[in-house]
Amino acid sequence: MAIVVQKYGGTSVGTTDRIKAVAERVIKRKKAGDEVVVVVSAMGKATDHLINMAKEISPNPNKRELDMLLATGEQVSIALLSMAFQQYGFDSISLTGLQAGIKTTGVHTKNTITDIDIDTVKSYLDAGKIVVVAGFQGVNENGDITTLGRGGSDTTAVALAAKLNCICEIYTDVDGIYSVDPRVYPLAKKIENISYEEMMEMASLGAGVMETRAVEIGCKYNIPIYVALSSEEKRGTYIKEYDETMEEKAITGLTINDDILMVTINNVLHKSKNVSIIFNKLANHHINIDMISQTAPLHDYVNVSFTANLEDEQAIDEVTRELTDEMPGIEICKDSNVAKVSVVGIGMKKQSGVAGTVFNIFSDNEIEFKQVTTSEISISYTIDSRDTNKAALVLAKGLNL
Amino acid sequence: MAIVVQKYGGTSVGTTDRIKAVAERVIKRKKAGDEVVVVVSAMGKATDHLINMAKEISPNPNKRELDMLLATGEQVSIALLSMAFQQYGFDSISLTGLQAGIKTTGVHTKNTITDIDIDTVKSYLDAGKIVVVAGFQGVNENGDITTLGRGGSDTTAVALAAKLNCICEIYTDVDGIYSVDPRVYPLAKKIENISYEEMMEMASLGAGVMETRAVEIGCKYNIPIYVALSSEEKRGTYIKEYDETMEEKAITGLTINDDILMVTINNVLHKSKNVSIIFNKLANHHINIDMISQTAPLHDYVNVSFTANLEDEQAIDEVTRELTDEMPGIEICKDSNVAKVSVVGIGMKKQSGVAGTVFNIFSDNEIEFKQVTTSEISISYTIDSRDTNKAALVLAKGLNL
Repeated sequence: MAIVVQKYGGTSVGTTDRIKAVAERVIKRKKAGDEVVVVVSAMGKATDHLINMAKEISPNPNKRELDMLLATGEQVSIALLSMAFQQYGFDSISLTGLQAGIKTTGVHTKNTITDIDIDTVKSYLDAGKIVVVAGFQGVNENGDITTLGRGGSDTTAVALAAKLNCICEIYTDVDGIYSVDPRVYPLAKKIENISYEEMMEMASLGAGVMETRAVEIGCKYNIPIYVALSSEEKRGTYIKEYDETMEEKAITGLTINDDILMVTINNVLHKSKNVSIIFNKLANHHINIDMISQTAPLHDYVNVSFTANLEDEQAIDEVTRELTDEMPGIEICKDSNVAKVSVVGIGMKKQSGVAGTVFNIFSDNEIEFKQVTTSEISISYTIDSRDTNKAALVLAKGLNL
Repeated sequence: MAIVVQKYGGTSVGTTDRIKAVAERVIKRKKAGDEVVVVVSAMGKATDHLINMAKEISPNPNKRELDMLLATGEQVSIALLSMAFQQYGFDSISLTGLQAGIKTTGVHTKNTITDIDIDTVKSYLDAGKIVVVAGFQGVNENGDITTLGRGGSDTTAVALAAKLNCICEIYTDVDGIYSVDPRVYPLAKKIENISYEEMMEMASLGAGVMETRAVEIGCKYNIPIYVALSSEEKRGTYIKEYDETMEEKAITGLTINDDILMVTINNVLHKSKNVSIIFNKLANHHINIDMISQTAPLHDYVNVSFTANLEDEQAIDEVTRELTDEMPGIEICKDSNVAKVSVVGIGMKKQSGVAGTVFNIFSDNEIEFKQVTTSEISISYTIDSRDTNKAALVLAKGLNL
């Protein structure tokens, strides 16, 4: 008898009929002899509906109250799913993030899990119950209800699996991890096994299927994560420790992210203090930045560019106002007609020449790029968003993904 | 500077615009120098929507999970109302029942408050915040989320006022307490002041405006309760200790309740054990019964009648099945075409003849009654539901209400 944590996303629990279907699926696993902890997201568009109500009240709603509001979405799902188990004759209990002992810290709407007091979940499992836990939420040191931000339910699921030392299965509306988003490049290959490191790069670069944080926790505690369809039985993708059975390809995948904007700050007086003021302000507003680049100083002035998520646009505008007050000479441009294209592969550690190959493909196809950044196992390019699909196609073909 | 607890019902917070209107109303009070605790119900039809989803999953959903589900309704309201205060520039915090320290016990969906750990609410009031508390909910000894059943938000409000030793204002969609439901008898008079005892009888007999439990708590802790409209400024009704300024009328009001059913059990063998089996079973199923009557034994058999709330019909059917198994000779009839008409007045303690007057009015108007029960300050009659309006009119006129 093994324990398994299964996570079902918002689409999988989008209607009461789908909730019943999830219950039937979980019951199969339970009948096969496993103890199951189920983590669920809010039903379909429930979160959007809640956010819309909040926006009707306030253009910029208080974030503690936004967490209080959003947490109801998952609470509805867990209650309904647990009712479904009991309707089918299986003992079950639903737990909010607080009840499941999920302790978090940080700023509201973007909390991180610090620890899970797993005793409650374990005691209900020991009593033979199917335990249904609200994803995406927890409680902070003040007893306030918190949420974990984007992909938070995956993080809840993997963190619970880490505490229970068991496999984590993420059921979603895609049938696994692909080398390239199949919506962009339909010939993309599904990856059967991918290492944590590669998946983290893919995730942080915008692959969309799994968020980086969840994979990080899997990596840290060596918890295998299985990503597959919730609607049918079809082999998905295992995310696990790198081993020699994984193909040693230079490039595993290609990711595209067009939910970004590029900010360029021109005419910054070339003192390291000035640049640090800029990035401190961004950090104070909890803006995640990426792909920083800086030109060489010319007449004591430098230009600084970075990319950020579109969702932080309002906070960036706030920083822009503050900066232009403090540094009257600077000029700030914001460009949302950009996309980030990245190639990822653990083999890049050993094989050189990937950057060169990509540069050649871009120049052969007349694709201009605005920024380049590299990590040990990835290279990313900011390009004009008009070129996104073209870049994806030529790179996928050229790199045989 | 005084503390006040204000409660706003589901209609008053039914839309985001109405939530803003409630916020404006509360802010006026805050500006006048009072510290305000606001208790709110779920938005308009939110609870019905949640119950419908539960019924799609299970015809008889698990009650612990139903509480988990229903509690989200108030959580949405408190978050949105607190956002509204902050949007208007007032510091505020929302608290779930659990966070507000509302401890409960009993069966799920019908819990009662055992105590309130008021420190959290007090500390936020001391910090100058408007405190917004979810009505209708609490937490039991196991840490499960519970709900308080019908009228639960009023109970939350009065219990908080009792702990804070302050007045409790209930804002609703009726402008006060009337001697007779104005929908039935438009000439009914609004009561300016009513004693706890009379209001408890009115409430328990089905007056609809306030539930008995809330008034009981007000009575026990001598907390004045003010009931008035939320949508305009218009004098409402004070519920408070009886004093000589209240008119010493024999009869204060008349209540009608047609959400009842009358159950008659014929041919029960006349042993006290048999009757106690019946009422024990009803108690075990948490069915509140009322107006018990029993005929004199004939050939060692008796007939027993009682009334109950229509909402317990399913549980009564369950008891009926069990009883007919155990006592094959009995015959059980259920009649939902009945209504209960009651006259209430603290003056009935001192003035006799009320029962006689009512019997005369009924016989003059050819209204048959099926059962009569009396308390110290009330008399109730079960009549055919066809006669309800007629009975209300002739009693209201005849008793000068």
